Amino acid sequence: MVIQLETIVYILDLVGTSIFAVTGALAAIEKKMDIFGVSVLALITALGGGTMRDLLIGVMPPFYFDQYSYLVVALVTALLVFMGHSLFQRQKKSLLIFDALGLGVFTIIGAQKAMQIGYSFPAIIILAMITGIGGGMIRDILRGEIPFVLQKEIYALASILGAIGFFLITRFIPIPIWIAMMVGIICTVTLRLFSIRFKINLPIRI
Amino acid sequence: MVIQLETIVYILDLVGTSIFAVTGALAAIEKKMDIFGVSVLALITALGGGTMRDLLIGVMPPFYFDQYSYLVVALVTALLVFMGHSLFQRQKKSLLIFDALGLGVFTIIGAQKAMQIGYSFPAIIILAMITGIGGGMIRDILRGEIPFVLQKEIYALASILGAIGFFLITRFIPIPIWIAMMVGIICTVTLRLFSIRFKINLPIRI
Amino acid sequence: MVIQLETIVYILDLVGTSIFAVTGALAAIEKKMDIFGVSVLALITALGGGTMRDLLIGVMPPFYFDQYSYLVVALVTALLVFMGHSLFQRQKKSLLIFDALGLGVFTIIGAQKAMQIGYSFPAIIILAMITGIGGGMIRDILRGEIPFVLQKEIYALASILGAIGFFLITRFIPIPIWIAMMVGIICTVTLRLFSIRFKINLPIRI
Repeated sequence: MVIQLETIVYILDLVGTSIFAVTGALAAIEKKMDIFGVSVLALITALGGGTMRDLLIGVMPPFYFDQYSYLVVALVTALLVFMGHSLFQRQKKSLLIFDALGLGVFTIIGAQKAMQIGYSFPAIIILAMITGIGGGMIRDILRGEIPFVLQKEIYALASILGAIGFFLITRFIPIPIWIAMMVGIICTVTLRLFSIRFKINLPIRI
Repeated sequence: MVIQLETIVYILDLVGTSIFAVTGALAAIEKKMDIFGVSVLALITALGGGTMRDLLIGVMPPFYFDQYSYLVVALVTALLVFMGHSLFQRQKKSLLIFDALGLGVFTIIGAQKAMQIGYSFPAIIILAMITGIGGGMIRDILRGEIPFVLQKEIYALASILGAIGFFLITRFIPIPIWIAMMVGIICTVTLRLFSIRFKINLPIRI
Repeated sequence: MVIQLETIVYILDLVGTSIFAVTGALAAIEKKMDIFGVSVLALITALGGGTMRDLLIGVMPPFYFDQYSYLVVALVTALLVFMGHSLFQRQKKSLLIFDALGLGVFTIIGAQKAMQIGYSFPAIIILAMITGIGGGMIRDILRGEIPFVLQKEIYALASILGAIGFFLITRFIPIPIWIAMMVGIICTVTLRLFSIRFKINLPIRI
């Protein structure tokens, strides 16, 4: 059985899109936004990181202009969250896990796209991180809050370390790229969940 | 008498620019910004939506780099509002009407530009909406508030429905495109004013 | 001894990058962000203005993807500020001077790049100003505040007047461009410091 890399990336991308749409929709509902605000924030959270990445690498128009699946997945997710809101809220803990998964998936997809184009190491890390955390940053700004990622817990660091791990594996270990992607995603997600579980924060200045 | 489509679009665009510059300037004055802040917020509100649209379709540098009329119209409007501030504030009701007109004009101009390039239906709607509401969203973020459009009343929905109406007319009814544009603008403006008049809001989750 | 224009621009650019990284890092520390938030805000403040300029002129990927020196300078600066925080805070006054210097340097670099490409006068001024104040605006938004530049004192105006001065000199006085750049930087910095010293603000509407 042969699964093409594109298919794997595509499916992972849709999964990440749906997960981030959930976090965007919940963030909007918390701020008492109407059903349209909920949909928009879900869309922006889900597609914002990828859009920022594509703006920086000069690949316009964005991918979702011709691949409706991204828009459909994000919008359907937003509507489901809006309708089944109470259900989702009760699951805050499983949501953190989902969010970590979204971070991992988007980070590694960003790194993989940057590597494919042939960018240098720092550019790959920056683009991976922007893909992973960009949507959430815009989400927080739009709801009038300081981006979560700047304040607490190992979030962006998990993204950076996961991207570095993925980069090193693809350079030095002769395994198929999709396995390297899985390892990178697992690294990122594990780091993130670990920091939540043990409440590990980065040092701040008092 | 033959009026070219470009001329109509150009005049509408300048009208929309001036209207949105008014809303940006008033928003800045309310936050006690100085005359420079007022000018900048007027410029950004007036040109922000079009800039975001052009960034997404990869048409850079933006249109106003070579067509000074846009800059001049926005700046002169800002200065007039700054000087005649009290006059404008007494007219809050007529301002809502103006704002609705700006929304309609920019939405349909965005839709028309996207159609001209040959984008797909969802891309046309997204670009129409970004042109219509993008400037106002940046305006609200820059003054430290959650974007109005995400919170209350049928605003973006009017933009979406107007763009869909315009799209359907141009596809299925054999009339000149400028008439289709007028109908699209009237649709958007009517929907927006209707929702203000009867205080219709979209559902929110409590 | 011949010093090339590129060398001068490059060195100035790195100096401006470091200065703005300091203001970004201090702004982050004030908001109790962790070491990662401090690094990110330093990077964004230092590179944000140039990124916005390059997005508008369609020059992507951004300059710092291949010239690591910018990233290194911004990050090392951020770490130094994080570690020597108390030292920097005691020097608030000298910081204002540094910040004015950063504004002047970035403004004139932006103007010079825009002139080199052959943009029109208004486009040059807009791009100069965006390079000069863009990073600081994003910094303030990300820490949940209304951009300083919109509210108080002659900041952006100093940038605009410096850029105009630089433009006029290069057009009408036959001196080497790097001297014109120095004059433009000195104009901007002087105006800015003058407005701080004598607490000159632009008029606001009450």
